Amino acid sequence: MHRDRFYTLAASCPDRTGIIARVTGFIAEHQGWILESSFHADDATEDQPGAPGRPARYFMRIEVKADSLPFMLSEFRDRFRPIAAELAMDWNISDSAVKKRVVVLVSKQEHCLYDLLARWQSKELDIEIPCVISNHDTFRGFVEWHGIPFHHVPIDNTRPENKRQAYAEVQRLFEESRGDTMVLARYMQILSPELCAAHPGKILNIHHSFLPSFVGAKPYHQAWQRGVKLIGATCHYVTSELDQGPIVDQDVIRIDHSDSPEDMVRYGKDIEKTVLARGLRYHLEDRVLMHGNKTIVFR
Amino acid sequence: MHRDRFYTLAASCPDRTGIIARVTGFIAEHQGWILESSFHADDATEDQPGAPGRPARYFMRIEVKADSLPFMLSEFRDRFRPIAAELAMDWNISDSAVKKRVVVLVSKQEHCLYDLLARWQSKELDIEIPCVISNHDTFRGFVEWHGIPFHHVPIDNTRPENKRQAYAEVQRLFEESRGDTMVLARYMQILSPELCAAHPGKILNIHHSFLPSFVGAKPYHQAWQRGVKLIGATCHYVTSELDQGPIVDQDVIRIDHSDSPEDMVRYGKDIEKTVLARGLRYHLEDRVLMHGNKTIVFR
Amino acid sequence: MHRDRFYTLAASCPDRTGIIARVTGFIAEHQGWILESSFHADDATEDQPGAPGRPARYFMRIEVKADSLPFMLSEFRDRFRPIAAELAMDWNISDSAVKKRVVVLVSKQEHCLYDLLARWQSKELDIEIPCVISNHDTFRGFVEWHGIPFHHVPIDNTRPENKRQAYAEVQRLFEESRGDTMVLARYMQILSPELCAAHPGKILNIHHSFLPSFVGAKPYHQAWQRGVKLIGATCHYVTSELDQGPIVDQDVIRIDHSDSPEDMVRYGKDIEKTVLARGLRYHLEDRVLMHGNKTIVFR
Amino acid sequence: MHRDRFYTLAASCPDRTGIIARVTGFIAEHQGWILESSFHADDATEDQPGAPGRPARYFMRIEVKADSLPFMLSEFRDRFRPIAAELAMDWNISDSAVKKRVVVLVSKQEHCLYDLLARWQSKELDIEIPCVISNHDTFRGFVEWHGIPFHHVPIDNTRPENKRQAYAEVQRLFEESRGDTMVLARYMQILSPELCAAHPGKILNIHHSFLPSFVGAKPYHQAWQRGVKLIGATCHYVTSELDQGPIVDQDVIRIDHSDSPEDMVRYGKDIEKTVLARGLRYHLEDRVLMHGNKTIVFR
Repeated sequence: MHRDRFYTLAASCPDRTGIIARVTGFIAEHQGWILESSFHADDATEDQPGAPGRPARYFMRIEVKADSLPFMLSEFRDRFRPIAAELAMDWNISDSAVKKRVVVLVSKQEHCLYDLLARWQSKELDIEIPCVISNHDTFRGFVEWHGIPFHHVPIDNTRPENKRQAYAEVQRLFEESRGDTMVLARYMQILSPELCAAHPGKILNIHHSFLPSFVGAKPYHQAWQRGVKLIGATCHYVTSELDQGPIVDQDVIRIDHSDSPEDMVRYGKDIEKTVLARGLRYHLEDRVLMHGNKTIVFR
Repeated sequence: MHRDRFYTLAASCPDRTGIIARVTGFIAEHQGWILESSFHADDATEDQPGAPGRPARYFMRIEVKADSLPFMLSEFRDRFRPIAAELAMDWNISDSAVKKRVVVLVSKQEHCLYDLLARWQSKELDIEIPCVISNHDTFRGFVEWHGIPFHHVPIDNTRPENKRQAYAEVQRLFEESRGDTMVLARYMQILSPELCAAHPGKILNIHHSFLPSFVGAKPYHQAWQRGVKLIGATCHYVTSELDQGPIVDQDVIRIDHSDSPEDMVRYGKDIEKTVLARGLRYHLEDRVLMHGNKTIVFR
Repeated sequence: MHRDRFYTLAASCPDRTGIIARVTGFIAEHQGWILESSFHADDATEDQPGAPGRPARYFMRIEVKADSLPFMLSEFRDRFRPIAAELAMDWNISDSAVKKRVVVLVSKQEHCLYDLLARWQSKELDIEIPCVISNHDTFRGFVEWHGIPFHHVPIDNTRPENKRQAYAEVQRLFEESRGDTMVLARYMQILSPELCAAHPGKILNIHHSFLPSFVGAKPYHQAWQRGVKLIGATCHYVTSELDQGPIVDQDVIRIDHSDSPEDMVRYGKDIEKTVLARGLRYHLEDRVLMHGNKTIVFR
Repeated sequence: MHRDRFYTLAASCPDRTGIIARVTGFIAEHQGWILESSFHADDATEDQPGAPGRPARYFMRIEVKADSLPFMLSEFRDRFRPIAAELAMDWNISDSAVKKRVVVLVSKQEHCLYDLLARWQSKELDIEIPCVISNHDTFRGFVEWHGIPFHHVPIDNTRPENKRQAYAEVQRLFEESRGDTMVLARYMQILSPELCAAHPGKILNIHHSFLPSFVGAKPYHQAWQRGVKLIGATCHYVTSELDQGPIVDQDVIRIDHSDSPEDMVRYGKDIEKTVLARGLRYHLEDRVLMHGNKTIVFR
């Protein structure tokens, strides 16, 4: 946690000799003060399943103190561009002074919504929430009391045309409010493939099981039936494949034979909100880099 | 942990009014001193998935100080029998002065074997180990140094006839040594259906994943591929369905993107041995009662 | 979790033969249906430090289905009284249909307040909150939006007379609103000895360290200075000795060298609110029995 | 985990601009392939307690593939020396092909000893154990069976002169066997100040409590008395101040009111051996850098 303004470079490129030296050399040349830096080489080789012939890839995240540099972010970008090109880099630089805009989607359960608004209210999450969208009108009063616009977009799952239009409306609201990130805070609806495809790596969901166990509906009931001794929650990016997107964070809690599915639902809420908030923070701080269907999380 | 000799009654019966009163009344009538007692009503009803119409069942575990009673265990059994019949009980009473006999099966990994022998050596596990059986000769010296007989029973998975004979030999050794419990301490072989069927609820396995995730072979590689953020281990009873038996205990450990499948194997060992030892202890202390494919564990 | 109305008996008495039989016999005699029951014998003996000659004590908690009994709670009490007297019991029976009244005290941090109100709103905590009391006016709007009265009782720690009067006012408000339980949800003030003494076993606090480590002020800074690798939170009953009351629940979270005291404060909030909510639930469900400066928690 | 030979540079220096660029530039210049790298800036400032005016310090750990460099380790050292001098660095380079030599000290409890030898046997810990030293003769047979020399050095705590001589003998054995690291695997004795002073940062201990709680003797009994709900273990460097050295790793396990001090001792063993093994591994892989009385642990 740094109170001074800083820029965050998050990047990946094919692995080779001299990457760190090239990038940090550029920063040092301009007297840039590095606050925090993380590097990771994915050294998967063909003897690992699912990775036949996958080329090694290099990942990094670097925080540079803004006022240590003699120029602004736009000039940093211009000057860094040739180096990135030379390294064949996917890259992104963000400015801690520019608040991220997070659109929250909810249904009828309050635990994640209250939790996120408390973190926003206390500035623990230093973000803008341009609006909350819901398929029910339940939380209008609560959200509006906080001075945040609330949009009720009902979804009728029995009518495909209505569904299509509803998700088009959700997408319009997200884009109109210039959202950076969409958070499904127990939204309980399956987004349309179009919406998923339009914003890859920008939609975070909290799933109420320890994936890949118990995909689909009623995971706590599934867990109860199997007799597991721990239950969990998973924060992951939404892709068009249900519950299959890259995992950002997970956690579990111990249960026992005396817990009913309803008890598990209750315990589960505590992990869900914590894991969602943690995953969201990693995402907003550009700590999450995607690599195929997996994530690098530089904590 | 009670140093005085005690009897442990573990039982289940259809739920009704007055069960505890009936059982503890019998004990009180004979001045039995109850050291520890646990009760559980399985209140599953038909609106819970997988439990349509399942009748409610009652479970209990009671430790009675041996010398508080005016008679020995055999007379306890005789006197208790009519009550058990009246309640339609499945029941079992054990005597803390009679050591359980645990046969250990291993392959070529040492972590669970060393761990179990250390606990046996220090009397933390106050059991007899009549023998260790392995499909490799690797640990003969180590086991025999401890004064425990070692049997090498090779398994050739390519020859069904050999396999059948090998498991018949394992079963013979188990029965000849009057084993109460068989522990697969990373045995890495799939027991024959005959052996599983011959000793239901007596064979404990440690599986190197957080079941039901990643059943079958190479679970850590599967976990690595899916990009999960926690890995686990599961102690369960062996049934003829691979990795599907009733779960006794589970635990997990946090990993991240920097961990290779080999790192996970290494971390996993620490959970495997701990979870196996914990599950084994619950089993040996008659704390585990089976209920269909689930367990009640009175810790 | 039982949806039907039930009575909860929580009791303790000197240990002897036949306690369970006596109590459950009484219940069975009246066809009482036991939903859940827990028993514990404190077998501390003089060779354990701090317990010289402490007599053994027996603890129990029993849930009986209300409509299985042929009489109401008042008659249950009358009929049970002689048995309790015979066993020299400290006892208490509560009715699940009567909501507990919880008065919440806060200061200027929102995490526990939002968390408790979300649980109250969703009926996860099925309680009445007759009022919220604070030494600051910060959360008046938020609390009143929920339809809960808010009282601002400023505390001036530099003026003993003001302090005395302020706590007298807090006590008056608690009693006037017929509170059963007072929850210090990060209240950050040290209650007066008079207030502590007036309601023993009714005031719950959340302390932001893993007690007994780091008592007093700024525990996260103390933890940072000592270089610990896990930080924690403790829910305990308030007594006149600061941070020394009986512990109800605790939990921890892993940190590392990269975390500043400010990061720890942030992580800590997640454990604080979870542990407080858990401890409060145990308390409200009469699962916590006190035994000297320790607690029995029948989960 | 890298199977290829690599060098590990662990270093710290006063913080300034360009440190990473300088060090990784040197490596890149010689085509060094960086396998893993971690950096940390200690940004403690005077408003943090205990750190008045402490100058900011920079820490790093870099693994370079040995055969990517055109020279051997000694030449690396020679060439790097001027850079290290320029940055006023404390530094150290080790070679993965040179096994560390770990001397183990035990008393009469086996859990840590069995655990360490299992890890050594399976090459999970790829070390040399030149000898085991004990104040009792209990484990001679077990240790010698593994082909490891065993030294019995009795300690008579009532005779200061004997004690002094005994620790001089321990030190002599450690030095004679060219030990890199001394591990107190539940040694239960307080080393002499001379021995502590002779090998700072080389002696690891496992303490059976979650420090700073319950220092000194019988920590589980202290924990039982205070009624905590979690117990723990701490791996730390030994300094002349008992239980006050820099903490390397910690962990906890949940207990409840039904656990006696003896149960806690039993549970505690499982955390003790795991935490000790984990701390030892971090140390042996040069992942632990000391900073005053705290540690940076690059996992």
